[in-house]
Amino acid sequence: MEKTWVIENQKDDYSQGYRVSNTVTTKKSEYQELNIIENPTFGKIMFLDGNAMLSEKDEFIYHEMISHVPINMHPNPKNILIIGGGDGGTALECLRHREVESVDMIEIDKLVCDESRKHFPKFMSAFEDKRLNIRYEDGIAFVKNAPEKIYDIVIVDSTDPFGSAEGLFRKEFYADVYRVLKDDGITVVQAESAFFDMPLLKNIGGSFRQIYPKCFAYQYHMVVYPGALWMFFMGSKRYHPINDFEINRFESFKNELKYYTEDIHKAAFALPKFVKDSLIELIDN
Amino acid sequence: MEKTWVIENQKDDYSQGYRVSNTVTTKKSEYQELNIIENPTFGKIMFLDGNAMLSEKDEFIYHEMISHVPINMHPNPKNILIIGGGDGGTALECLRHREVESVDMIEIDKLVCDESRKHFPKFMSAFEDKRLNIRYEDGIAFVKNAPEKIYDIVIVDSTDPFGSAEGLFRKEFYADVYRVLKDDGITVVQAESAFFDMPLLKNIGGSFRQIYPKCFAYQYHMVVYPGALWMFFMGSKRYHPINDFEINRFESFKNELKYYTEDIHKAAFALPKFVKDSLIELIDN
Repeated sequence: MEKTWVIENQKDDYSQGYRVSNTVTTKKSEYQELNIIENPTFGKIMFLDGNAMLSEKDEFIYHEMISHVPINMHPNPKNILIIGGGDGGTALECLRHREVESVDMIEIDKLVCDESRKHFPKFMSAFEDKRLNIRYEDGIAFVKNAPEKIYDIVIVDSTDPFGSAEGLFRKEFYADVYRVLKDDGITVVQAESAFFDMPLLKNIGGSFRQIYPKCFAYQYHMVVYPGALWMFFMGSKRYHPINDFEINRFESFKNELKYYTEDIHKAAFALPKFVKDSLIELIDN
Repeated sequence: MEKTWVIENQKDDYSQGYRVSNTVTTKKSEYQELNIIENPTFGKIMFLDGNAMLSEKDEFIYHEMISHVPINMHPNPKNILIIGGGDGGTALECLRHREVESVDMIEIDKLVCDESRKHFPKFMSAFEDKRLNIRYEDGIAFVKNAPEKIYDIVIVDSTDPFGSAEGLFRKEFYADVYRVLKDDGITVVQAESAFFDMPLLKNIGGSFRQIYPKCFAYQYHMVVYPGALWMFFMGSKRYHPINDFEINRFESFKNELKYYTEDIHKAAFALPKFVKDSLIELIDN
């Protein structure tokens, strides 16, 4: 057992590997295969269809950046919708904000929630929070059928754009998301690696440009995601991520965070030149 | 050949792998083994003792950040010393600045220069620039014996802290570097991954704190370096990286760059909370 490795060949020519000190669980749902292993450096790592989704060691980067950035630029973030996010990490970060009254989480695969709840104790408090409402449904159908203008913030916390997540990268879906947002709402979507997936990122940006009055992109570093330089794309009906940023918003819990700070909030929108050049027509200043 | 991979197990529990579409060269010097392969995504990749040192696809990130950050905060960057940097990438970026009159490059291993010159055409112009003086010597001995106060900027462009590069991470060496710097000089050192190597980073910071009046750390993303969130440590005798940053300095060639911009210069000093907390006593604001 000691010498077993999980090698993730997500990209044809590039792989990342993790030594397995313990196999925690291997299960299969109708949507995907789920594996959780333990690795001495990363702690527990969850894989979906062979791709690392989160590790105990670096999940905080992704979850803090996908949630606190939009929440801290919105003056009144009461109702949040998370599409995907079944591990509970994004919900946990959203629920740190006392102003947040409800978080609806639409996760297609109940297995992800069940296993995360069992094996990632950090996220337990989110699952136990009464403000969290989980529905095990297809997020695409959910936003198509939901009433208009009911959410302040929509977070698309998706896996990679294959299989059941593919529709979460389409313009029709983004248009439905826009519809369920209130008149000053904000959407953030997981937008892959700027290093490996620029065509996809431009595609997302192109769709957003046709839908949202204001578009932005911001970056973060992940270790378990291949490509180092990872991106979120943001569409906003009214607010600006820097000009409308409220520094006092996270004062009460800022010492519990490990990545996000006031400076990181602002710096995340400074894009490397090759990224900025590629997105120049698609984002605002 | 088509199915061969190079797997880099630099960390005990974590690996990165590259499919080999072509083996370019395998050589051995008295210091290390050098391999260059071709990979469909990364282009040519140079490995030293099995660790990826640079790829054609992402070298620009490292080389732009190690050079333009200190040069653009110094009002009169005439004489630059590079310790290591045998591939020529750092020299290339330094030599873009017309104010730079000389770049001394002290590379212990001639093989690195010879093979880089042959296989990485981008760096050729640096090797042909008359302002570049290469000496194949031990950088540690060089700074010990060099006259004092002769350089405006010293860049320590080292490999990882094993083998012949180990001494480049010691306080005695940093003190000698300080000695060869003019009264307003700046030093930048390659300081590994904040994610994997925090003890080393704190060690470097602790040494710098005892030597330099002003200390700073800044970050960048690399794909071929394991740990995503990579750091440079900076010691400065006088200038401040943000307050003394001169925006016009790189106007003439800014369109030739692919990572570094004015915004990236400033944003690089915004550190993730866990990094800032770890270095809080060791860096200035």
